[in-house]
Amino acid sequence: MQIGIIGLGRMGANMAKRLLLAGHECVVYNRSPGPMEALEQEGAAGARSLSELCAKLTPPRALWLMVPAAVVDDTIEQLIPQLDRGDTVIDGGNSHYIDDIRRAEQLSALGLHYVDVGTSGGIWGLERGYCQMIGGEVDAVQRLQPVFAALAPATTSAAPTPDRDKKHSTADHGYLHCGPAGAGHFVKMVHNGIEYGLMAAYAEGFNILRHANVGSTEQQHDAETSPLRHPEHYRYDFDLGEIAELWRRGSVVSSWLLDLTAHALLAQPALESYAGRVSDSGEGRWTLDAAIDESVPVPVLSAALFQRFSSRGEGDFANRVLSAMRAEFGGHKEKS
Amino acid sequence: MQIGIIGLGRMGANMAKRLLLAGHECVVYNRSPGPMEALEQEGAAGARSLSELCAKLTPPRALWLMVPAAVVDDTIEQLIPQLDRGDTVIDGGNSHYIDDIRRAEQLSALGLHYVDVGTSGGIWGLERGYCQMIGGEVDAVQRLQPVFAALAPATTSAAPTPDRDKKHSTADHGYLHCGPAGAGHFVKMVHNGIEYGLMAAYAEGFNILRHANVGSTEQQHDAETSPLRHPEHYRYDFDLGEIAELWRRGSVVSSWLLDLTAHALLAQPALESYAGRVSDSGEGRWTLDAAIDESVPVPVLSAALFQRFSSRGEGDFANRVLSAMRAEFGGHKEKS
Amino acid sequence: MQIGIIGLGRMGANMAKRLLLAGHECVVYNRSPGPMEALEQEGAAGARSLSELCAKLTPPRALWLMVPAAVVDDTIEQLIPQLDRGDTVIDGGNSHYIDDIRRAEQLSALGLHYVDVGTSGGIWGLERGYCQMIGGEVDAVQRLQPVFAALAPATTSAAPTPDRDKKHSTADHGYLHCGPAGAGHFVKMVHNGIEYGLMAAYAEGFNILRHANVGSTEQQHDAETSPLRHPEHYRYDFDLGEIAELWRRGSVVSSWLLDLTAHALLAQPALESYAGRVSDSGEGRWTLDAAIDESVPVPVLSAALFQRFSSRGEGDFANRVLSAMRAEFGGHKEKS
Amino acid sequence: MQIGIIGLGRMGANMAKRLLLAGHECVVYNRSPGPMEALEQEGAAGARSLSELCAKLTPPRALWLMVPAAVVDDTIEQLIPQLDRGDTVIDGGNSHYIDDIRRAEQLSALGLHYVDVGTSGGIWGLERGYCQMIGGEVDAVQRLQPVFAALAPATTSAAPTPDRDKKHSTADHGYLHCGPAGAGHFVKMVHNGIEYGLMAAYAEGFNILRHANVGSTEQQHDAETSPLRHPEHYRYDFDLGEIAELWRRGSVVSSWLLDLTAHALLAQPALESYAGRVSDSGEGRWTLDAAIDESVPVPVLSAALFQRFSSRGEGDFANRVLSAMRAEFGGHKEKS
Repeated sequence: MQIGIIGLGRMGANMAKRLLLAGHECVVYNRSPGPMEALEQEGAAGARSLSELCAKLTPPRALWLMVPAAVVDDTIEQLIPQLDRGDTVIDGGNSHYIDDIRRAEQLSALGLHYVDVGTSGGIWGLERGYCQMIGGEVDAVQRLQPVFAALAPATTSAAPTPDRDKKHSTADHGYLHCGPAGAGHFVKMVHNGIEYGLMAAYAEGFNILRHANVGSTEQQHDAETSPLRHPEHYRYDFDLGEIAELWRRGSVVSSWLLDLTAHALLAQPALESYAGRVSDSGEGRWTLDAAIDESVPVPVLSAALFQRFSSRGEGDFANRVLSAMRAEFGGHKEKS
Repeated sequence: MQIGIIGLGRMGANMAKRLLLAGHECVVYNRSPGPMEALEQEGAAGARSLSELCAKLTPPRALWLMVPAAVVDDTIEQLIPQLDRGDTVIDGGNSHYIDDIRRAEQLSALGLHYVDVGTSGGIWGLERGYCQMIGGEVDAVQRLQPVFAALAPATTSAAPTPDRDKKHSTADHGYLHCGPAGAGHFVKMVHNGIEYGLMAAYAEGFNILRHANVGSTEQQHDAETSPLRHPEHYRYDFDLGEIAELWRRGSVVSSWLLDLTAHALLAQPALESYAGRVSDSGEGRWTLDAAIDESVPVPVLSAALFQRFSSRGEGDFANRVLSAMRAEFGGHKEKS
Repeated sequence: MQIGIIGLGRMGANMAKRLLLAGHECVVYNRSPGPMEALEQEGAAGARSLSELCAKLTPPRALWLMVPAAVVDDTIEQLIPQLDRGDTVIDGGNSHYIDDIRRAEQLSALGLHYVDVGTSGGIWGLERGYCQMIGGEVDAVQRLQPVFAALAPATTSAAPTPDRDKKHSTADHGYLHCGPAGAGHFVKMVHNGIEYGLMAAYAEGFNILRHANVGSTEQQHDAETSPLRHPEHYRYDFDLGEIAELWRRGSVVSSWLLDLTAHALLAQPALESYAGRVSDSGEGRWTLDAAIDESVPVPVLSAALFQRFSSRGEGDFANRVLSAMRAEFGGHKEKS
Repeated sequence: MQIGIIGLGRMGANMAKRLLLAGHECVVYNRSPGPMEALEQEGAAGARSLSELCAKLTPPRALWLMVPAAVVDDTIEQLIPQLDRGDTVIDGGNSHYIDDIRRAEQLSALGLHYVDVGTSGGIWGLERGYCQMIGGEVDAVQRLQPVFAALAPATTSAAPTPDRDKKHSTADHGYLHCGPAGAGHFVKMVHNGIEYGLMAAYAEGFNILRHANVGSTEQQHDAETSPLRHPEHYRYDFDLGEIAELWRRGSVVSSWLLDLTAHALLAQPALESYAGRVSDSGEGRWTLDAAIDESVPVPVLSAALFQRFSSRGEGDFANRVLSAMRAEFGGHKEKS
């Protein structure tokens, strides 16, 4: 089918390519023309403006937005005057789901449809396909099935779940209509919250393995440091890359994140090119906000998020408060 | 090669089967004779006692123990008088690695070898193979390669890690000599610590999804309860089984644990047959002990362990202390 | 000075009493007349309606609201038509500070002042005085100083902070103008977030003391339970009430919360009248929301909040997910 | 009574002074003679060696050790040959309670008594008195009551607990016989574990207050950073020292730790002389070890300890693992 794509960053351009490969007709637009021209080489129709894009699409149009969350609203406002009743705007980026709820209402009042799609797959999506979590009205979602199917991974990318043969669900194809407006980004948000927790679990484990030789290093003995009771228990020099590779087969902790970790540790066992200042891009925070609203305890997901904050020095003042208290009650000086 | 197997529980019996299928000669023993007799049907040689087992094995013997951690020491003590210099005892169970360090020293003084093997794979190991993390002296481990190779998963059970073709490592086959005595169980211990964290990340995420409809239920309004500011943001009724299945393809959170979760939620969307009293079997605790000794922060792994303790009511008194304090300073009554 | 008080619950009635004792003129209103009539006995002027209340106050009026957060907006809307330019509305309850920011703007447009006051002291405030955290415009706050001073604790309720004699601040009297609109409730919110953390620290510590005799109870030995390695280290039967009392003098952990805990444990060493379902009343959640917005790591405050959620069973589904996973990969049955 | 004191560091010397002031006879020893000579000026009898110390004491002797935990065992071994049956060794330092259990057994076999005393009070103890948590046999503890009473704080240092008048307990005087060998250090260990949690709660809270002006600073807008949705909610410039002082009177979070924090923030509002590398001296770790052995959930105490580890860079490798994963799946570069 015909689809307009707005925003040709890393994700948007790759999605356009995957759609073109599947035989869909893509009209593409980007603020700076470079990525658009590149896609024209691969068979897309380029548009120099949002108006041109809208003009090149036959109603009822489908416009897939792949722009930063902060500019989605602006883009939609620019589009509205050029759309016709029955057109559908799809937000495929990382919007907060509560913005989806609001936008769906606003567009609905104008006779327009709004569909939110959380996508996972990162830079691997072009090759592996995109896992798509979809929210919106049934009809609007239904009409876009060919697009979702083209973007989705191969059914064979995971073994069939036993006893599932009776089900006829697109979930087995890597896309799913999860519920009304916002449902797609809600599920994606929780997906990313889980991702933070999974990543932290591996990171902490590998950190323990890395420090398993502390018994071989010299110990300080002073009132401020508690001596290691049994240094003889910590004299292992583990090859973390080998262990990551090992766990990929037959173990309970195998996962795609572990596959990637094995690759990273193979190239660079000490990961020395990284400073360890870990960004977070919003979904982890929103997941916590939702958990708090729902009264759901999330000790693991929150610990994972806060560790990222700490990695960027955001806990420094709290640490200074602790050192100040220790100086006050015990005369403890900080160790350098 | 010839191997003796002591302890034919769920794990031990399946490992014997996998070894028999690979053409190895297994002499097997179990405290109660039933499982031994069953394995005799499949080609194993049964032994009615540890003495008979030792007698049926040709030195240098290899004896694989698959018994509860609490009885490993007893079993080894019973074996010692019947072993010859050069024999090897393998502990394939869930021993604490510091016990391995001690045992290896003790046996070494007697001219005996000790190899510790942490195995992952659970009840799926017979079919999928066992991921094996191995500790011990190089020669002793080397001699057992045929056994490890037979128990290990197929190399093809995971896609090759890119850029890894130059490596010639057994890690790609799902088994690895990780280091000296205790290294196997140390790595297995951390593996399980990670496992706790991964499991908790999924569990918390699915709990958020399950409660995403709190805005549809009636709200209480009193001084003790903070009202949900935006109930309209929490009106989703998600199908958790479908979402688990969805994430199995193309998403960043795909993993074997997710595969299992998808299967469990398919059969029973509300998991109503479970009470949610979650056991822990030692490795998670030992992982924390090691992290503490190493001064490694493990906020996620510890949160995962403590949530299990709480699930079994171990935090109840702490909660009563909180309620008592609230009654003392604010006159707050507990809500029923 | 003259002040109107709206809402005569536990907190409001006690504040009125404390103001009357200090010689202030109080006009009081409550939805149900009982508490108002009781205060009339103590010298307050009662009002049967908000209109009567406003009529009895001489402009520029000061109206102190002490009503549930959920009805503050309604009350203000009812008041507005009866107020004159220059009047001041004070919210002394537990409002979210972002509501203060909004209200201050709305009232300011009408020539009215808005002051937010977070108060701590609970049911002890009548006797001990109320710690008051205040937000609003300088002039409006300044005019209310006599009221704040009367409600505040005695300066002597804490020893002077060394080196502080040069300061002339109301903080030493237990009240403080913290900043513009919302500042009072923001500081109160964080105050309560801290309170949750402090309470949890004590609660966890006492729980460890209470279980210090696990080595004296019988141990289960099975594959699901890791045996206690050194039962001889856990054979203490501590008297928690005595220990709480002990720590009140000379120790680093002495505090008012500990004073209350000592009292509670004295009366009931096992706190058996409490079920341990711990409520949370909003500020802890808002503290987390603020921390997340600010990118500030709060592993301790969040753990304290989530433990309260768990105490009320909100983690049950997550726990069932864990048990289901364990059944899937290991065939583990839950223990009863 | 007569008492020998071994180890005249900050704590030991102050305790000797407090005992001398109370009229007790102190024989003091220190490895380097300086502190001993200083105490001779204040009325103590100095000893140049452990032998001289023992010779100067009349059996049954009481020897109070105030030496680093790492040298307690050595010191006791040197003492043993010079002691007589009925003598008592007191460990007033920060030993792990399981060492107490072992030592008490060893000394008991020689007819010697062992008493463990956990003391809290820090550098303030000379002036305020020491809170003492005591373990050991009843008779040995009983004989030392005059010493404990002299070291203890004044009964009046805390208000009487209501309803407690019927009790006749030394807890009201700041010392308590908590149980058999090890009980003193066990209670002190948990005391310090709680202390870590309390400190972290304040530190996190003040960190939130400090960052309450993030809405006034410029925001970055890129795919890696989630924008602050409502900067207008975070425009407060709080005076932390004033707020700490404020909370000291009438509030639920008042405590001695808060008193100290108020003092520290008064002198240095940004605590700029501290780097925020926070030491931990053993008890926090042991508290976790005990909690794990007892199956007691301690999410708050553990988060407090791990944050200290992180403050010293011990989580850096874990953070690099996270950044590496993000680079692998999303091509995310670290931000500088």
